[in-house]
Amino acid sequence: MTTVKPKSVVQEYRDVRYYSEKLVQTLEVEDFVVQAAAHVSPTKWHLAHTTWFFEKFILEVYVPDYKYFNEEFLFLFNSYYETVGEFHPQQKRGLITRPTVRETMAYREHVDQEMKELLSEKEGDATITSLVEIGLQHEQQHQELILMDIKYNFSFNPLYPSLKEKVDPLLKEAPPLSFEEYEEGVVEVGHDGGGFAFDNEGPRHKTYLHSYKLANRPVTNGEFIQFIESGGYEEAAYWLSDGWSKVKEEQWKHPEYWQEKDGQWFYFTLSGLKEIDLDAPVVHVSFYEADAYARWAGKRLPTEQEWEHAMENLLLDGHFMEDESFQPHAGYTGQSMEKAYGDVWEWTQSPYVPYPGNKPLEGALGEYNAKFMANQIVLKGGSCVTPRSHIRSTYRNFFHPHMRWQFSGFRLAEDV
Amino acid sequence: MTTVKPKSVVQEYRDVRYYSEKLVQTLEVEDFVVQAAAHVSPTKWHLAHTTWFFEKFILEVYVPDYKYFNEEFLFLFNSYYETVGEFHPQQKRGLITRPTVRETMAYREHVDQEMKELLSEKEGDATITSLVEIGLQHEQQHQELILMDIKYNFSFNPLYPSLKEKVDPLLKEAPPLSFEEYEEGVVEVGHDGGGFAFDNEGPRHKTYLHSYKLANRPVTNGEFIQFIESGGYEEAAYWLSDGWSKVKEEQWKHPEYWQEKDGQWFYFTLSGLKEIDLDAPVVHVSFYEADAYARWAGKRLPTEQEWEHAMENLLLDGHFMEDESFQPHAGYTGQSMEKAYGDVWEWTQSPYVPYPGNKPLEGALGEYNAKFMANQIVLKGGSCVTPRSHIRSTYRNFFHPHMRWQFSGFRLAEDV
Amino acid sequence: MTTVKPKSVVQEYRDVRYYSEKLVQTLEVEDFVVQAAAHVSPTKWHLAHTTWFFEKFILEVYVPDYKYFNEEFLFLFNSYYETVGEFHPQQKRGLITRPTVRETMAYREHVDQEMKELLSEKEGDATITSLVEIGLQHEQQHQELILMDIKYNFSFNPLYPSLKEKVDPLLKEAPPLSFEEYEEGVVEVGHDGGGFAFDNEGPRHKTYLHSYKLANRPVTNGEFIQFIESGGYEEAAYWLSDGWSKVKEEQWKHPEYWQEKDGQWFYFTLSGLKEIDLDAPVVHVSFYEADAYARWAGKRLPTEQEWEHAMENLLLDGHFMEDESFQPHAGYTGQSMEKAYGDVWEWTQSPYVPYPGNKPLEGALGEYNAKFMANQIVLKGGSCVTPRSHIRSTYRNFFHPHMRWQFSGFRLAEDV
Amino acid sequence: MTTVKPKSVVQEYRDVRYYSEKLVQTLEVEDFVVQAAAHVSPTKWHLAHTTWFFEKFILEVYVPDYKYFNEEFLFLFNSYYETVGEFHPQQKRGLITRPTVRETMAYREHVDQEMKELLSEKEGDATITSLVEIGLQHEQQHQELILMDIKYNFSFNPLYPSLKEKVDPLLKEAPPLSFEEYEEGVVEVGHDGGGFAFDNEGPRHKTYLHSYKLANRPVTNGEFIQFIESGGYEEAAYWLSDGWSKVKEEQWKHPEYWQEKDGQWFYFTLSGLKEIDLDAPVVHVSFYEADAYARWAGKRLPTEQEWEHAMENLLLDGHFMEDESFQPHAGYTGQSMEKAYGDVWEWTQSPYVPYPGNKPLEGALGEYNAKFMANQIVLKGGSCVTPRSHIRSTYRNFFHPHMRWQFSGFRLAEDV
Repeated sequence: MTTVKPKSVVQEYRDVRYYSEKLVQTLEVEDFVVQAAAHVSPTKWHLAHTTWFFEKFILEVYVPDYKYFNEEFLFLFNSYYETVGEFHPQQKRGLITRPTVRETMAYREHVDQEMKELLSEKEGDATITSLVEIGLQHEQQHQELILMDIKYNFSFNPLYPSLKEKVDPLLKEAPPLSFEEYEEGVVEVGHDGGGFAFDNEGPRHKTYLHSYKLANRPVTNGEFIQFIESGGYEEAAYWLSDGWSKVKEEQWKHPEYWQEKDGQWFYFTLSGLKEIDLDAPVVHVSFYEADAYARWAGKRLPTEQEWEHAMENLLLDGHFMEDESFQPHAGYTGQSMEKAYGDVWEWTQSPYVPYPGNKPLEGALGEYNAKFMANQIVLKGGSCVTPRSHIRSTYRNFFHPHMRWQFSGFRLAEDV
Repeated sequence: MTTVKPKSVVQEYRDVRYYSEKLVQTLEVEDFVVQAAAHVSPTKWHLAHTTWFFEKFILEVYVPDYKYFNEEFLFLFNSYYETVGEFHPQQKRGLITRPTVRETMAYREHVDQEMKELLSEKEGDATITSLVEIGLQHEQQHQELILMDIKYNFSFNPLYPSLKEKVDPLLKEAPPLSFEEYEEGVVEVGHDGGGFAFDNEGPRHKTYLHSYKLANRPVTNGEFIQFIESGGYEEAAYWLSDGWSKVKEEQWKHPEYWQEKDGQWFYFTLSGLKEIDLDAPVVHVSFYEADAYARWAGKRLPTEQEWEHAMENLLLDGHFMEDESFQPHAGYTGQSMEKAYGDVWEWTQSPYVPYPGNKPLEGALGEYNAKFMANQIVLKGGSCVTPRSHIRSTYRNFFHPHMRWQFSGFRLAEDV
Repeated sequence: MTTVKPKSVVQEYRDVRYYSEKLVQTLEVEDFVVQAAAHVSPTKWHLAHTTWFFEKFILEVYVPDYKYFNEEFLFLFNSYYETVGEFHPQQKRGLITRPTVRETMAYREHVDQEMKELLSEKEGDATITSLVEIGLQHEQQHQELILMDIKYNFSFNPLYPSLKEKVDPLLKEAPPLSFEEYEEGVVEVGHDGGGFAFDNEGPRHKTYLHSYKLANRPVTNGEFIQFIESGGYEEAAYWLSDGWSKVKEEQWKHPEYWQEKDGQWFYFTLSGLKEIDLDAPVVHVSFYEADAYARWAGKRLPTEQEWEHAMENLLLDGHFMEDESFQPHAGYTGQSMEKAYGDVWEWTQSPYVPYPGNKPLEGALGEYNAKFMANQIVLKGGSCVTPRSHIRSTYRNFFHPHMRWQFSGFRLAEDV
Repeated sequence: MTTVKPKSVVQEYRDVRYYSEKLVQTLEVEDFVVQAAAHVSPTKWHLAHTTWFFEKFILEVYVPDYKYFNEEFLFLFNSYYETVGEFHPQQKRGLITRPTVRETMAYREHVDQEMKELLSEKEGDATITSLVEIGLQHEQQHQELILMDIKYNFSFNPLYPSLKEKVDPLLKEAPPLSFEEYEEGVVEVGHDGGGFAFDNEGPRHKTYLHSYKLANRPVTNGEFIQFIESGGYEEAAYWLSDGWSKVKEEQWKHPEYWQEKDGQWFYFTLSGLKEIDLDAPVVHVSFYEADAYARWAGKRLPTEQEWEHAMENLLLDGHFMEDESFQPHAGYTGQSMEKAYGDVWEWTQSPYVPYPGNKPLEGALGEYNAKFMANQIVLKGGSCVTPRSHIRSTYRNFFHPHMRWQFSGFRLAEDV
């Protein structure tokens, strides 16, 4: 089901680590340093933190007399693992100019060298292999974050910097909206333990679904503009109460990164400021906006169980990070269910809670997922900045409902 | 199942309206005015707002040429119904000294007189009866809020005012903690449409429950002190991430209203400052604290479906508002499942979301429940400040997970 | 120079204490409780705090075995005297419903009775007389604050309550603006020690004045409207930098309490909402607004030394609290210098700093004035809510430059 | 009186511009970008803004068809001149990674080349010479800010970066504290118009001084530690009310950049973390701390007139930026009045207000000083990060009283 499998763990390690550096090749040194809000991080920090993860959870444990590149980095590059010691406050990451980018790259090299030696020495060690796999999945998550955060940081610059020129697919019109129906009954969802999965994806378990319908594709920019222009952001009746407070407080009038100039809509992308593609899926909307749109359209968002049940047997292809266009596009395929994977993370209506019988990992890695199970909403399917080998039908991404800097869109559902 | 049924709607109206005024008989005029935080309201406001509800949704619609007591009250006493006009900002309710208490009582009398006439004229009108029922259920909710808010407002006064002298039951020891087991399978939950229910309680629908166990009684003050004294508030590992932020931000070290003096625990009650009763259920804890306790104890909180399935056939008796002691107590009965109803609202682990197939009411009353379905958690069973006739097994109360001024406690569950 | 002198201290005490209660006769009980912002206080608190002042600084010291009315009041009604113990936080005064108004009045009576006895026993005791004088001057300051704060608290009520019906003088046109010239040289300012003065008013000392001119009357509402309508609040060039920040942050577009309805200007007064009197002095402007107006008019504000030197020999008559109209009016007298005393406190350009050689009082009463000598600006002359016997040419009132709820206006000056 | 005079304006321009770049030679690229608080700026911004000043106020006006290096920089690098157009918000300067450091240096080169051509073409033009002089004085102020801001930004890094190794003078003991007396009378202060001065320094004018005494040297670290250790930061009686609020709000316990480790005091300097030199002047104290110390010591701060009158005939030598040690030191000279100029800016007790008869510059440059004349306090004498040629006895520096990141200390005074 994933393309990573046939590779050796050494190859996997090399490939994922390499990709993090490939993503930032076109940045200037200055770009690595800044942090435009508490919830984003400097690129430099991401490169160091993913490295720290291997140092802290593998090298420190399995290499006798392991020599740290710099012991102070244990404090500087821990993100939030309370059980492994103090950490530098998240909102101040953008103030730390040293280590420099060059030193950070040397830190990566140091750890990569040590990892290479360890992996050759302990070839086949199941515990280490499993920890490396977590470390690489973790680094893939940060690859997505690197792109999200560069976009966010760049967006504050009136010069509209570009990370990479846009490579568009042959543009196509979005197919007409239609709905596929699914039958009522007891079904199974969740990960069954074969292959890698995070601890929040299992166990596989029974759940009861009522009959439902799911849209054949995500909502497009063109459709979302209709919502805007019919007054969607001014009418309280479409909004959840907390969402409406946010609309007024933040003066939301459109998705993040959008602007209107002389009656024309533009968005800031990782290729600079561009005219909006009406047929591409809408992206950078919060859960509140997705939910308000659905209410306006007389529909609703699907539950995560409905989504997973409908999509679990579809091919895991789509528009992912490796395509390097970093923006959802109108590349439709003509299949009955379009863009289930890739392009945009799809908001569900499901709060992020533990599955029945779920057991978090023991120790510090138990902090990875479980402690975030409050006030967040599940998203499914991956996006155009998600590594292709990172996604699964059981994957549960999650964000607070007001967040918009992730590449999030949505697909409509309805009762039968 | 409820005692309200045999009464006529006129009697019901009279009794519920009377009780709101009975609750505040011992207050001084000054006590009616203040508002110690944005989320609480002055007693005066509650008395006026519940009255406005009848005026706005019934009298204005069904009485030809209805004469308002004062047209400005439409603005002053609307709480949050966006669809029926502008409203005075919630956080400034405590600044409004006029209308006075006396004038507010005259407003109540005016509306009660008009309602009495309308009800006698339109006896048996199903629409009006149903609206009156909503209005009375609404007023009962505000009776609970009146007591919650008086307690909160009083708690800022170093003189520890008392609303009412405490009347204790014969104190008993809490029975030892034990767990009842429930079997796996498809069950039904939710309201079936017989008798009154809010729009968020239906429809009755199938859901799949995995085997689970539920504690025979809520967690007690004595048990919670063990959590505190073993360092529960200092150990991040027990806490959800958002909860841990709250603990540090608000410097939580114990439930709301508690204080320690010379090694002895006290709490502020509506009868003043009292020594803590170790055998009574713990109350005024947030969802985060309930969840942290459960993790510390190696258990978990029940889902709302588990709770409802276990309790739905139990008798609706318990310790309610009409007992007028306004504090959970150690009045155990010896039954196998203690205090399912009354004493403390019990936190579940279930975020407050719509039931499958749920349809909110049309019009402004659709704002009553549906728009709050984000970031809140369901509580079940009613408390010592809930009117007895207000509670049902399907009742879904909800609060943000950090809130503590409601009378909330919890009961443990575990997987089989 | 003052009318208080010939009275005995007992008479003075009785008269001043009586007036505080006279001012609030028309209030409802509810009105005594609220506090609409941290910088204002409930009426109830003022009545209690001025009483506490006599209890703390006189009765506690000079009455053997003095019996407190209620010992907890020492904490509740201390305003800010750090050296005499802890105090209840200022911004929470509006949450304290007990003691009630009735109990507060009983507290006043208790202290008045004790004071009466002490004063008859210690007749002629110079230390006590001097402390009583400070206590009465203090209470007079709070009489002004009571009126300022009632106005502020009432202004949040959309029903526009009135304290007292307006009694207008025969309205007159403001005389044309003209300027009086004063010569350069060494002059003396400050209090010379004869009669009562606060410790910040002395010593009398030499200072060097350059030639200057002073306007014959304060700026009027009509003139200020010209400033508004010519875009004064939109043009940064007129404003001090900190003032301009305030304008944008608070969205100031006119003085406090003003509003425009259909092209007509109104202000909220202690007699309710009224049409603005164009010939009356403008009031409720901050220092920043006064300074911006002066810059717009090509003038400047006077220094406190210029003001005092020009006014010190004028009669201390004018429009004061005892006239009970509580709003500056167009009662011009035809003298060459109008409204030097009364109507509006006049902003000077002088920051509030100690006079050369100034010595604050010893002990807690040294906190009365000296510790506020940073970031505040001196105002002169008293207002329509200042007791007549309270004002002197050397009196130095002071407020932070952004404050507007005091009855502050201004008079222009210019260099020769 | 200044060393700049004999140089041609071309030489002056070259020398000052060169020094800005010399100061930052040892920085890494990453260090140029960050901004740790709204009141500091990135080094890159300072280098660009000082360049913008010449472009905006000279090249744009005097070079026909002037070609901008980049027209967007007019918006990005305007600091606060409201009258010359919109500007990028100050608190977001640290988010702008482009232009890069390299591009910023190219911008400087472009402007320097254009300025060189203009100055050779217009040699001797008085208006241009005078504008260049303002531009260079402005750049010197930013040289000081560059060092203040690097220190502030670095201080957030737990690795304690160093800008430059410390070069200490031969350490000496501070001379014993003594006081020089000055006589009462009318004196003159302020700039008389000969040589360059800012518009806030004039006109020279008469003022009346009462007899006073001034300390022979600034207060030292050793003396300030006595204040700390005797409880100075815990005793409200020493503090101005606004200062005491700040102490509690910010939890001040010592000057900025200090820390205690195992009973030993250290401070962060531009050479990294160092043991405190007890004999050096204390630095990085706010006005509130200086004033509290003085009160604790039974003295007071001097007025700016007292300071200027005492120091105006002293030699302008001392410890300045060009010494490149960037920290006040114990280099005493044995003169009767030590360290009047250099080492630390000295807080006076004088609020920053216009001199009698003062006229700000016309046009945008009038915003340079006048609009800051509220809520700030005058400091005199320059510091170890002030360019030597920048200081004068009449120079009036000013900061808000709670600010501490400037190199500010103080000297005691007392009445006779």
